[in-house]
Amino acid sequence: MTTLQPVLIDGQWKQAQSPAGTFSAVNPAAKAPLKDIYPISSFTEVGLALAAGHQAVTELRAVSADEIARFLDIFADMIEARSPALIEMAHLETALPKEPRLQSVELPRTTDQLRQAAQACRDRSWCRATIDTRLNIRSKHGPLGGPVIIFGPNNFPFAFNSIAGGDFAAAIAAGNPVIAKSNPGHPGTTKIFAEAAFEAVQKNGLPQAMVQLLYHFQPEDGLRLVAHPLVGATAFTGSRPSGLRLKEAADKAGKPIYLEMSSLNPVFILPGALKERLDLVAKELVNSCTMGAGQFCTKPGLVVLIKEKLSEAFFQAVKRYFQEAPSGFLLSEQLLSAIKAAIEKMKENGAEIVIGGQEFHKPGYCFANTLLRVSGDTFLENPKALQTEAFSTVSLFVFAQDMAQMKEIAASLEGSLTGTIYSHGQTEDEYSYGLIEPMLRCKVGRLLNDKMPTGVAVTPAMNHGGPFPATGHPGFTAVGIPASILRFTALHCYDNVRPHRLPLELQDKNPTGRTWRLIDGEWTQRDI
Amino acid sequence: MTTLQPVLIDGQWKQAQSPAGTFSAVNPAAKAPLKDIYPISSFTEVGLALAAGHQAVTELRAVSADEIARFLDIFADMIEARSPALIEMAHLETALPKEPRLQSVELPRTTDQLRQAAQACRDRSWCRATIDTRLNIRSKHGPLGGPVIIFGPNNFPFAFNSIAGGDFAAAIAAGNPVIAKSNPGHPGTTKIFAEAAFEAVQKNGLPQAMVQLLYHFQPEDGLRLVAHPLVGATAFTGSRPSGLRLKEAADKAGKPIYLEMSSLNPVFILPGALKERLDLVAKELVNSCTMGAGQFCTKPGLVVLIKEKLSEAFFQAVKRYFQEAPSGFLLSEQLLSAIKAAIEKMKENGAEIVIGGQEFHKPGYCFANTLLRVSGDTFLENPKALQTEAFSTVSLFVFAQDMAQMKEIAASLEGSLTGTIYSHGQTEDEYSYGLIEPMLRCKVGRLLNDKMPTGVAVTPAMNHGGPFPATGHPGFTAVGIPASILRFTALHCYDNVRPHRLPLELQDKNPTGRTWRLIDGEWTQRDI
Repeated sequence: MTTLQPVLIDGQWKQAQSPAGTFSAVNPAAKAPLKDIYPISSFTEVGLALAAGHQAVTELRAVSADEIARFLDIFADMIEARSPALIEMAHLETALPKEPRLQSVELPRTTDQLRQAAQACRDRSWCRATIDTRLNIRSKHGPLGGPVIIFGPNNFPFAFNSIAGGDFAAAIAAGNPVIAKSNPGHPGTTKIFAEAAFEAVQKNGLPQAMVQLLYHFQPEDGLRLVAHPLVGATAFTGSRPSGLRLKEAADKAGKPIYLEMSSLNPVFILPGALKERLDLVAKELVNSCTMGAGQFCTKPGLVVLIKEKLSEAFFQAVKRYFQEAPSGFLLSEQLLSAIKAAIEKMKENGAEIVIGGQEFHKPGYCFANTLLRVSGDTFLENPKALQTEAFSTVSLFVFAQDMAQMKEIAASLEGSLTGTIYSHGQTEDEYSYGLIEPMLRCKVGRLLNDKMPTGVAVTPAMNHGGPFPATGHPGFTAVGIPASILRFTALHCYDNVRPHRLPLELQDKNPTGRTWRLIDGEWTQRDI
Repeated sequence: MTTLQPVLIDGQWKQAQSPAGTFSAVNPAAKAPLKDIYPISSFTEVGLALAAGHQAVTELRAVSADEIARFLDIFADMIEARSPALIEMAHLETALPKEPRLQSVELPRTTDQLRQAAQACRDRSWCRATIDTRLNIRSKHGPLGGPVIIFGPNNFPFAFNSIAGGDFAAAIAAGNPVIAKSNPGHPGTTKIFAEAAFEAVQKNGLPQAMVQLLYHFQPEDGLRLVAHPLVGATAFTGSRPSGLRLKEAADKAGKPIYLEMSSLNPVFILPGALKERLDLVAKELVNSCTMGAGQFCTKPGLVVLIKEKLSEAFFQAVKRYFQEAPSGFLLSEQLLSAIKAAIEKMKENGAEIVIGGQEFHKPGYCFANTLLRVSGDTFLENPKALQTEAFSTVSLFVFAQDMAQMKEIAASLEGSLTGTIYSHGQTEDEYSYGLIEPMLRCKVGRLLNDKMPTGVAVTPAMNHGGPFPATGHPGFTAVGIPASILRFTALHCYDNVRPHRLPLELQDKNPTGRTWRLIDGEWTQRDI
């Protein structure tokens, strides 16, 4: 019998104490449980991690930004050193392809994020030091008063991993300890990351509870955790129902929570685009829908067109490409059930399944590429129900009567991470664009033109966020450094505080000689 | 019989339709209702304002930042033109002194805030345009998808007025329409502001529902309003119970809400400060506690000292000055009841009333200047109950056994807007400062040294915010432009969007020649 995998609490890998249960990951390609067994931690154990994490908050105040940067860089190196094991394990646990996905795309992205966060730490500009020299009032963003709890999603075992991904990098860069909860879909991958992270902590002599790992706890314990007085903030990426429950608990306790919950990523295709390049747009759309077996938060789930001949031809082209495209493995059985339920709901509300619509009986979890269609009139009868995310290669086409109805459809949308408008390369669609864009702009975080939304670049200008229910707050992004760091901070003002007691970033001398600071209304790298 | 005062909805001053009731303001100096009668709007009427405000969102997208700036400037001029009427009315409704408070302090502060917001609009740097030229991804903060609802507090009839104060200036500067709810304590003052604001709207040919005014609605309608799908966000400044109810409703609907709810503003006085300048510190403290009859959100409600001879002498000095200081008028009868209840709660939990503790029977609402004391041991038995805000000249002194206990007290505090440490002018208290500061830092928005917290400068470096329950989110400030504007925005990213379709702030050419933008990691005023 395999023994239970140890949790990482307060600088010790140890056996879970009186776990509330155990679980194993399941290989989605074989529908078979993997051999390693992981504990579902009791709330007593969660409490131990919390107490240690809270202690680390104070300890981290004595750690310099350069030391934290060094930790992030060394951690990135250690991930690279473990890459064969990580790729092997993640492939087993998620059935995502080793190449190019895991090895050439997601792993380099993960280490790149950690190194960008290290660079941001070293540079210190992320904290937005703001100084009024006349009044001697100075402020900057600083770490929270408690550890950050991170719940990672199932679909990015590396880049959004709770102990190595974007949220982790951002929370650590701001100077917070992290308590990671592994996604139950890939506990083994998460454990390898945690081993690397903890080794980097030790190597740098950092507070030992700076990174901690629990694999799982009971849902009600998750609610208690995010609302606990000792917690600083929570980051959650996952399903909308779980996200909403956590949000309610955290909100009631006044604890910040950043959620990425669901997104339909509507694509509006204006008539001129089809006249000009129908087949190209179809290929781009299909590529965006099928990437990662449609399990991307930015997958286009809704396509809106004007009801006309070319749109019909476009739909037929997409249908053909959908049929030709292979269906990848889904991440879990729960996902399969959720997709079936979403499609059922759309059907009940008037959508017609044109292709797919059912499980695809391969050895692993698989759902047939699915296209649905509905008229604009029917969509507007129940826009909410017809905006149900199906996390797979599933898209609903809406055929609007005319431009006025297309505008109405845009106005009826819920918040999404992205919204896309395809238009004619010249001026032909300009008027229609002007009708749709103002509606769409306030529904999405990232607005695209003539480019599909999948693929989220890690750049300071990115917004991987958007209005509720895509996230919990429209002002923050989960991807893109330095902005993503600001989620895990409080605004710290110092009024008349003596010079030597100020954090380095607020002292007269520029701490690095290149930190950008807003001094008396001017962004500058100079000293005072 | 006086007729009902009209509401301002969708560009019309009109009689309330089927109001749910009526109310009058009360002159706190005479405990007498004033003659004007105001409607408590029905939810039907609230809905009309919402629909009009939502329509104005789209209309405002066609209005340039310069036009909004002009509106704010003209509004400020119009306020000045109405200043005698405003001062007269505010004095009647709040009993705050005309001089210096209303005329020389609060009114100039209000117009200054509006003009600073105008300047920020014109300058456009507030929106934090961030551009990645290589990937052609560009982002900035932009207005929300619905109007901003503003609930103003009772204690600043001008500077935090729902239709002229800091929240109003910030929401408008970001390009949002505002629906103001007057504080029921000063509806007449608010009406004069609304008249000026609406005249400025008309003079500038702006969307007519850009500013709207309701005086009051029933509490349950307030909960429906902040959670309504058409709402952009809410700002509330007021009592903790009301704030928490609104927060719960808005949170459930995923609507941003910014709250300023309560604050104890702890002051830690280290032994060296008393050795050096006991009487000066006592005078500064008393001045800070008595200003505005203690009805400031930054009034020190908790003073923490080490139990020793000098601290006792300090307490006696404060007591003497408290007894000498006149008690001003309180703003309302409800406040009086809340103060009594707060003191009762502190008493029940072991605090001893040394002076004051009861209503002061003047013609108006008045409460005797009150000092309470408690030992550190007793405080730590029930720190939560002993942190009950009493919005008046009421302060609780805590005498800690030693520095370790003082640290424990700091660690037990709830979130406050400010936290203060007084220390010896030389190095004497340096070690103690190092013990207390890390605890206090994560409990407050603004940390002060050797300076009392009342008086909130309007500077970009200010943080008038802090951890829950002082506010609803530790990352935002309600005072200080440009940061306060960011509350009423969403992060808008543009990915591959054609140049002429970008907002001006994100186009290659710097829109003003002086707007600060973060281009490829460098803050600059240049074009691309």
